[in-house]
Amino acid sequence: MERDPSEIDFAKGGGLVPVVVQDAASGRVLTLAYANDEALRRTRETSRSWFYSRSRSRLWMKGEESGNVQRVVEILVDCDADALVYRVEPSGPACHTGEETCFHNTLGGARA
Amino acid sequence: MERDPSEIDFAKGGGLVPVVVQDAASGRVLTLAYANDEALRRTRETSRSWFYSRSRSRLWMKGEESGNVQRVVEILVDCDADALVYRVEPSGPACHTGEETCFHNTLGGARA
Repeated sequence: MERDPSEIDFAKGGGLVPVVVQDAASGRVLTLAYANDEALRRTRETSRSWFYSRSRSRLWMKGEESGNVQRVVEILVDCDADALVYRVEPSGPACHTGEETCFHNTLGGARA
Repeated sequence: MERDPSEIDFAKGGGLVPVVVQDAASGRVLTLAYANDEALRRTRETSRSWFYSRSRSRLWMKGEESGNVQRVVEILVDCDADALVYRVEPSGPACHTGEETCFHNTLGGARA
């Protein structure tokens, strides 16, 4: 089903929704970030990953400094419209450490 | 690299971290939920997906009512240790609607 951007529930998270960034080709989860309505609008208009930084209190585009932009090929919305998935084609590493994904660590003792 | 559970930054999110639930076989993102330290402890101990419900203010296990439990085969931690991925083997639909994933909707006008 197709959802309209006006249906996204930004209010629940104080103006922000969590965004799962996923590599569209490999399926790897790259980053967990946040978007406000303006970040989502820019993402839709530019097909680049835009977010809202909680620590810096400003909009930012993935790759604006590193050049490692992400082309957003699809946006998924969850059942209660309070979380998004950006499915992307990355032009370089997602993580500031240079790793392909921010989720490059495992939790010790994860198995029972 | 392996991270210790004590390194997870629950404080940043008021005691909660977002959890991306991903099907370990298909790579599909199933659900975005939240965990506190107790939910994470139970997940590690039982290899089942445990979360903290913000709306109901209580711990819950995926499948506790539906029977659609998720076996957690791996937990990933992001670079700043404030978000997790549960990689799971689901025994049934992740979504309360009966869909395989909560992210079964696309955002209209997602492409520029």
